[in-house]
Amino acid sequence: MQSLKVSLDSRSYPIHIGSGLLRCAELIVPHLLRRNTLIVTNTTVAPLYLQQLTHTLENAGVTCLSCAIPDGEQYKNWVTLNQIFNAMLSTRCERTTTLIALGGGVIGDMGGFAAACYQRGMPFIQVPTTLLAQVDSSVGGKTAINHPLGKNMIGAFHQPRLVVADTETLNTLPDRELRGGLAEVIKYGLIRDIPFLEWLEQNLERLLARDADALTEAIYRSCATKAEIVAADERETGERALLNLGHTFGHAIETGVGYGNWLHGEAVAAGTMMAAELSATLGWIAARDVARIEALFLRAGLPVTGPRLGINKYIELMRHDKKVEDGRLRLVLLRSVGNAVVSDVATEDQIAGAIAGRLADG
Amino acid sequence: MQSLKVSLDSRSYPIHIGSGLLRCAELIVPHLLRRNTLIVTNTTVAPLYLQQLTHTLENAGVTCLSCAIPDGEQYKNWVTLNQIFNAMLSTRCERTTTLIALGGGVIGDMGGFAAACYQRGMPFIQVPTTLLAQVDSSVGGKTAINHPLGKNMIGAFHQPRLVVADTETLNTLPDRELRGGLAEVIKYGLIRDIPFLEWLEQNLERLLARDADALTEAIYRSCATKAEIVAADERETGERALLNLGHTFGHAIETGVGYGNWLHGEAVAAGTMMAAELSATLGWIAARDVARIEALFLRAGLPVTGPRLGINKYIELMRHDKKVEDGRLRLVLLRSVGNAVVSDVATEDQIAGAIAGRLADG
Repeated sequence: MQSLKVSLDSRSYPIHIGSGLLRCAELIVPHLLRRNTLIVTNTTVAPLYLQQLTHTLENAGVTCLSCAIPDGEQYKNWVTLNQIFNAMLSTRCERTTTLIALGGGVIGDMGGFAAACYQRGMPFIQVPTTLLAQVDSSVGGKTAINHPLGKNMIGAFHQPRLVVADTETLNTLPDRELRGGLAEVIKYGLIRDIPFLEWLEQNLERLLARDADALTEAIYRSCATKAEIVAADERETGERALLNLGHTFGHAIETGVGYGNWLHGEAVAAGTMMAAELSATLGWIAARDVARIEALFLRAGLPVTGPRLGINKYIELMRHDKKVEDGRLRLVLLRSVGNAVVSDVATEDQIAGAIAGRLADG
Repeated sequence: MQSLKVSLDSRSYPIHIGSGLLRCAELIVPHLLRRNTLIVTNTTVAPLYLQQLTHTLENAGVTCLSCAIPDGEQYKNWVTLNQIFNAMLSTRCERTTTLIALGGGVIGDMGGFAAACYQRGMPFIQVPTTLLAQVDSSVGGKTAINHPLGKNMIGAFHQPRLVVADTETLNTLPDRELRGGLAEVIKYGLIRDIPFLEWLEQNLERLLARDADALTEAIYRSCATKAEIVAADERETGERALLNLGHTFGHAIETGVGYGNWLHGEAVAAGTMMAAELSATLGWIAARDVARIEALFLRAGLPVTGPRLGINKYIELMRHDKKVEDGRLRLVLLRSVGNAVVSDVATEDQIAGAIAGRLADG
């Protein structure tokens, strides 16, 4: 097991990464406020891991209620959130009950948001079971649901009390989801960690083959970067925005094609290529840098072009992004490979050109 | 104009109370993050005060968008909240736009919750236009919507940047709403301010006649108590709970009869009588104290008995309250008049007896 800490004063919390951690009650129980929990999961993960986690906790004298919602980004909305609230109220969850989010990014985001809002805030723990959630979304306290007009538009900052990433759960992860998670892993290399990018270029096939040591290393290094950035800028007033490389383009793709059609990681990969293209347009990176990034995404089996929504639709959707300020699109771009910056210097024509250069053959 | 401050370190904010403040741009503009606002109000208040506030702000160079939702507690739910989000997204509100809640408690609670969640948090300002909102709900950062199984169950702590209580707006307040607000005013006397309780006993008719000086005094003294308690215990881990005298019983009434049938203040008055009755059962206050409190509520035209929902229904609804801990009902009771405490010593039989003793003749 490897461990890290997200340093946020009195709200600091550990991240544990390793194999078989769902069986380790001693990792989880000390972080419960009281000895009762509500496990929020989905109908895919529940048959795989709910019983195991419940067994671990109940053997340690902890009461477990559970609530399984449908699986998929298309359910990350008010309607499903209300199903969680209905379950909480009908089972009389108190504000001292601990919510445990057992699942991927959607479960973590929505379970975390439910915990943020229920009785104005209850404690919660992240138990991510996808690569994407283990390397990114379970860490840092961003919670949200989607709105038809924009992804993650309604949410809260609500830090978990603990993150437990059991790498055994990746054994049942569909290949497509594993590849989606790699998009966020590659992101950490691109924004500020060239040695990690090089390590990924050397070890990508080990990751795709689910080599346990390689996966643990990738998760650990990703979480280390994320923990450091979150500790420095919890509320995203500055450098935390860099973690959104490819995300403004990517969110437009996810919203534009309809939630649940593209995986978040797939949209981030295509979006990152658009950001790279735009960075090249601005003369910040070279064509060979763009090709290098593209090669890595292609090896990971990720898309490097976006769907043909129409350029105007892209721009319109991007204008709903949370990073828009005074009507200006602020984008995360690459000053160089391994050095991301937030910038609003690109003109709308340049942005449109970068998108146009990265659309799938229609 | 009288002013107060809620002291919360970097999130401290002023409360201004006085006549004609909606015309004072210089009070509001310095608290905007940028020069654009979204005014959330309801269809009753909009024709009365929206134009005036918009005019004040626009003359100071501030852009104003607005969104008017239906009026009433029965609309304090997800559906209406989503109407606000739709308006925000379709008008491209940014996370630096300031939301201004112009209206009573429902608008403040729901506008505040919308501001807490939109893009994970935007600034907001409270402009309360009812007595209840001016003395209580606009101060302290509690925001929420109702759930069919429990009042204010879904919400957030999100402090405003400013509270502006224009006492002129009380001139158009229906009598019933004025009386409802007095329930919360009387509450402050009961929980810890005997001199204020005596002042109310001497000046109640002036308040009912809308004497401007008397109203300003009552609002100021109420806000002073609230500001002090919130500064000491923002997240209600201790003494802030005292502000909920009568509220656990009252929320059961509001939920039980259906939101919008009883005003919040009416339910608080009847609920406070139940709490007083229970305090007498425990031998903490005398029958003459109960009679004294009842007399004041009756003079204010407020109910002193609750609807006949059935005792079991009351208990069941109260068990959903946020103050339940380890399954035990924790209630705010009167150790003496002017000295409220949180206690779980009352047995369920004693609670049932106090409710039974305070039901309307059926």
